[in-house]
Amino acid sequence: MKNKKILRIIPIGGLGEVGKNMTLYEYGKDILIVDAGIMFPENDMIGIDYIIPDFYNYLADKKDRVRGIVFTHGHEDHIGAIQHVLEEINAPIYDTLLTRGLVEVKLNRHGLAGKADLRTVKAGERVQIGAFSVDFFHVCHSIPDGVGLGIETPAGLVVHTADYKFDHTPVDNWPTDYAKLAEFAQRGVLALLSDSTNATEPGWTKSERIIDQGLDQVFKKAKGRILVATFASLISRMQQVANAAERHGRKIAFTGRSMVDNMNMARELGYVDFPERLVISLEKSLSMPDNQVVLMCTGSQGEPRSIMGRLASGTNRKFDVREGDTIVLSSHPIPGNEEPVFRTINQLFRRGADVIYESIAPVHVSGHASQEEMKLLLHLVRPKHLIPIHGELRMLKQHAKLAEEVGVPAENIAVIENGQVIEFEDGKLHLKERVPGDYIFVDGTGVGNVDRSIVREREALGRDGVVVVNLKVNRQTGNLSGRPEITTRGFMLPEDLDAMLEKLTRQIQSTVSRSNGDLEYEVLRSLKSYLYQETKRNPFIFVTVSQN
Amino acid sequence: MKNKKILRIIPIGGLGEVGKNMTLYEYGKDILIVDAGIMFPENDMIGIDYIIPDFYNYLADKKDRVRGIVFTHGHEDHIGAIQHVLEEINAPIYDTLLTRGLVEVKLNRHGLAGKADLRTVKAGERVQIGAFSVDFFHVCHSIPDGVGLGIETPAGLVVHTADYKFDHTPVDNWPTDYAKLAEFAQRGVLALLSDSTNATEPGWTKSERIIDQGLDQVFKKAKGRILVATFASLISRMQQVANAAERHGRKIAFTGRSMVDNMNMARELGYVDFPERLVISLEKSLSMPDNQVVLMCTGSQGEPRSIMGRLASGTNRKFDVREGDTIVLSSHPIPGNEEPVFRTINQLFRRGADVIYESIAPVHVSGHASQEEMKLLLHLVRPKHLIPIHGELRMLKQHAKLAEEVGVPAENIAVIENGQVIEFEDGKLHLKERVPGDYIFVDGTGVGNVDRSIVREREALGRDGVVVVNLKVNRQTGNLSGRPEITTRGFMLPEDLDAMLEKLTRQIQSTVSRSNGDLEYEVLRSLKSYLYQETKRNPFIFVTVSQN
Repeated sequence: MKNKKILRIIPIGGLGEVGKNMTLYEYGKDILIVDAGIMFPENDMIGIDYIIPDFYNYLADKKDRVRGIVFTHGHEDHIGAIQHVLEEINAPIYDTLLTRGLVEVKLNRHGLAGKADLRTVKAGERVQIGAFSVDFFHVCHSIPDGVGLGIETPAGLVVHTADYKFDHTPVDNWPTDYAKLAEFAQRGVLALLSDSTNATEPGWTKSERIIDQGLDQVFKKAKGRILVATFASLISRMQQVANAAERHGRKIAFTGRSMVDNMNMARELGYVDFPERLVISLEKSLSMPDNQVVLMCTGSQGEPRSIMGRLASGTNRKFDVREGDTIVLSSHPIPGNEEPVFRTINQLFRRGADVIYESIAPVHVSGHASQEEMKLLLHLVRPKHLIPIHGELRMLKQHAKLAEEVGVPAENIAVIENGQVIEFEDGKLHLKERVPGDYIFVDGTGVGNVDRSIVREREALGRDGVVVVNLKVNRQTGNLSGRPEITTRGFMLPEDLDAMLEKLTRQIQSTVSRSNGDLEYEVLRSLKSYLYQETKRNPFIFVTVSQN
Repeated sequence: MKNKKILRIIPIGGLGEVGKNMTLYEYGKDILIVDAGIMFPENDMIGIDYIIPDFYNYLADKKDRVRGIVFTHGHEDHIGAIQHVLEEINAPIYDTLLTRGLVEVKLNRHGLAGKADLRTVKAGERVQIGAFSVDFFHVCHSIPDGVGLGIETPAGLVVHTADYKFDHTPVDNWPTDYAKLAEFAQRGVLALLSDSTNATEPGWTKSERIIDQGLDQVFKKAKGRILVATFASLISRMQQVANAAERHGRKIAFTGRSMVDNMNMARELGYVDFPERLVISLEKSLSMPDNQVVLMCTGSQGEPRSIMGRLASGTNRKFDVREGDTIVLSSHPIPGNEEPVFRTINQLFRRGADVIYESIAPVHVSGHASQEEMKLLLHLVRPKHLIPIHGELRMLKQHAKLAEEVGVPAENIAVIENGQVIEFEDGKLHLKERVPGDYIFVDGTGVGNVDRSIVREREALGRDGVVVVNLKVNRQTGNLSGRPEITTRGFMLPEDLDAMLEKLTRQIQSTVSRSNGDLEYEVLRSLKSYLYQETKRNPFIFVTVSQN
C-alpha cells in the first residue's frame, strides 16, 4: 500500500452545490484545502445566520496533515468561513494580493489579525505545499485577482478552476490565462474540476465591459442624483461606476462600512484607480446639486439593514430617497432572494425614484462561464477526467452532457455529491466511500447546535404559533381554581382568541374533571384536538399545572 | 350630484400586484366584480395557506349593489376566492364554458354546487349587467377560453384585458380578437386596464406552438418512460403532450386528482380532443414497456404533496421514478418558489431520471404579453387613459414607460396601487380616496384572524424558538423547590442545552432570591439577557411560577 500513488479529492459544503465552499486534496499524509467559504441559508432554514462546510468530521483526526489553505478569490462563498477553519487548523494561507486584503478585513473583524500565516502569491507563480506543486493562474470572474490552480502530484496533474469566465475585455484588461491552460494540456491533465454554475446558460457570458454602456445609458438620462448599489466585494464595478461618473461630470461618494473599507483597501493595493478630485465624502455629496452626484452603496440584495434596504423602508439616518433619484441595482438576485430584492425595488419606486435593474438595462453580467466557455475550457485543458463542481446536481449533470458533446467519454466524467471521496490511482478514477461533507448551521454564537430537526421545530412553531396554558387546580376538590391563564404567540389575533376563551375554559374544566392520571398530558391532548377542530391549526401547546 | 355620470374603478388584492385578484367597477348604484382569485403566500408569510382580496371592507355596506361577478379565465388567481365571495354576496356569475367548468369543480369541493347562479357567456357576446353593457372578447392565455371585457357605461367605454398574449399560432387555433379591439377603438376607449406581468420582457412572447418542437426533441431522445408535470389547469398543454405521445407511438395516462378531474371536464366540454385508444389508465401504463408510455401529472412547482413532489422524495404510493425515466417540468417557477422547484429537480436527478425543464429545452412559454404586444394592444385600442394592472409596482411603471413611448400622454396614465379609487367624469380621470383594498390571510379555517402582527410573531418564534420555564417556589423560604422545568422548541439541540442547564438554574435561583416583586417578570428578564449573552439568540420565553 505504502508505495501506491493515490490522490484523493473530497468536495465539501455549499448547500448541495458540490465543493462550492471547500475542496480537499489529499496525497499520502498531506492535505491541501482549497477555499473555505459560507453560504446563506435557504428560505426554509429559519433563523440560521449562515452555513459553513462540514470539514470538522473528515479532518477531525487529520488536522496536523493540512499543509496549506489556498483561496481562489475573495468572495464570501470562498473565504467566509476562514475564522472557523483557523479555530481548528494551523496552516499557512496562500492567496493573491486582493484576496489577501479581503481575508485580512475579515480576520480583523474577528480579532484574528496577526494570528494567521498569510502568504501572498502572484498569478503565474508555482508554490510547493506539502506534496502538492501548485501553479496559480489568472482567471476572470466578478472580482479581480481570481486564480485557478494547477495541482501537480505524483498521481498526476489536476486543474481546479473554481469560479471563472473567459472575458475578452475585462475591466482590468487581464484575461484568463489561456497559455497556462494550454501548457497544462501539454503536460497532460488527469482531471479537471471546474465551475458548473451557468451550465444551463447557452452561449457565452457577456463581458463586464458592456456594463459601461448600460451605465452610460442610465447616466445620460438621469436628471437627479444617481445611486448605485452592488456587492461590497465587486471591486471592478466601483471602477466602472467611478469612470461613468467622470465621463458624465459627476462626483462619486461611497457609503456603507464594508463598501468603504473594501474601496480603500482596493485603492491602496492599486486594484482601482480614481483621480483624487473625483471622490467626495457622503456629507459633501448631500450638499451638492443632485445632477452632479453619484452615491455608491451596498444593499443590492434587499438586505433590510443595508443602506439600500434602509432607504427603501425610509429608515436611513443620513439621507433619504428623493423624488427624481435614479437608483441602479448593479447585481443579480441571489437564487431564492428574488422576493426581498423585488420588494425593495417596489418600495424605492414608491418613494419616487426611478429604479434600474438587470431586467431593464444591462447594468450587471454574470461572473461565471456559460456553455460555450465551458466547452472552450475542455478543449484548452483536454482533461482525461471531468469532475463538475460548483453547482447543484442539475447543473453538474448539464455540465457532464456538454463535456460528452465535446468528446469526454461518459465513463470519465464523475458527477458526484459533497462528501464523495474520489481516488485517482494509475490514472484511473475510483469512487470511494462517502464521508460526512455537507454543511453546518451557524446561528448566533452556535456552530452546529442547531440542526435539521431544530429547524423543523422552528418551521412548525412558525407555521401555527404557540399556546401556553397555566392551570391552577384545587388540591381538595380536584377542580380548576379560577380561569386558566392562556398566553399565545403567532396563533391568532387576541380578539378572536377571546371569543373562543369561554369554550376553551369549559373544555379544560371537563378534561380536569375526568382526569385520572397525567393531568398535563391529558389537557394537552384534549386542547390539541379541540384547537385543531376549531381552527385547522396545530400550534405547539405547553401545559403547566400547579396545585393550590 | 345625482345626474353626474361617474364611473368608479377600484383594484383589490393580489399581494401588491394591482387588481390581480379582483377589480370593482361602480356606476351609480351598480357594482360589477371582475375576477375573485387567490394568491399564494410569500416566503415570509409563515403558515398562511393562501391570500384573498380584501373586498370585505369596501363592499361591507354595498353588498346588495353587486349586479354580477365576471370571470375572465379559469386560473386560481382569478377564480380561487369564489367561495369566500359567495359567502357574502349573492349575484350571478358570468363566464365562458371552460371557466365555468373550473368554477364548478371548485364549488363542488366546497359543497356549494347548485347554490351559485352560473350564466355561461360566449366570447363575442354582449351582456347587460346592471348599468354595465359588457362585451366579452376572446384573448389567448395559458388556458383556453379566456376573455377580455369591453365595459360600456354612460361615463364611457373601458377595456379590461386581464391576462392575455397575442399568440398567432395558439394550440386551439383561436387567436386574440383583434377585430373587436379595433372596434372598441372606433367607438372610442376612455380607459384601458391591462396586464403588466411581462412589462420588463422585451420583444414578443413565444407562441405555445413552439412547445410542440420542444416536446418532439425530448420524445425523440427518451429511451424510457416520459413523465410530464404541469399545472392541472393548463388544459392546452394536455393536448400538446397527448399529440406528442401520438406522434411518437406512445400511450398517455393522466394521474393526480385535479389533473384527472380537469382533463375529464375539458374532454367532455370539447376543449381537448384525443382518440380513445391514446389514453390508458395509470395501472395499465405501469405494466407496459417503458418506451411506450407517457405519464402526465401535477407538481411542476415542487409542491411536496403533489405526485412529482412525492416522486422526488420517494414517497409516492403507486409508482416510483425509474433509472432511465425522462421527466419534463412544463412550467415556470412561480416567483419566490424557485428553491423548492430546483430542489425537486435535483432530487429527481438523484433518483436516476433525466430532468428537462425550461432552462434546458423549450418546454414552457409565458402566457402573458411582452413589451411589443403591449405596444400593439395600445395601438389597437387607442385608449385615452391607461391604468396598468396585474403586476408589481415596478412592472406597472415599466408598462407606463412603454405607453409613453407609443404616445399616451404621461398625465393620462395612472400608476396606482390596490384600494386606490379612480373616478372618470366627463372623460377625465381623477384619483380619489384610497380605501382598504389589500389582501386577507386565510389560515386553516380562519379568514382574517391572522394578520401581519401575528405573522411577525411567527417569524420571531421561527427564528429562535421557544423556552418555557416552570418554577416551583417554596412558600416559606421563598426559594426554588427543586430544579426549574425547562422545555424548549426550536431553540437548540437538547444535548447543548443540557450543558447550559446548571448555569441556567443558578441564574434563576439568584433572580428568585433577589426578587421583591413580580417574580415571573423578573425571571423572564434575567433569562432573556442571559440566553442572549450566551447564544446571541432571542427565543420567546414563558415563565410560570407555582408556589408550594
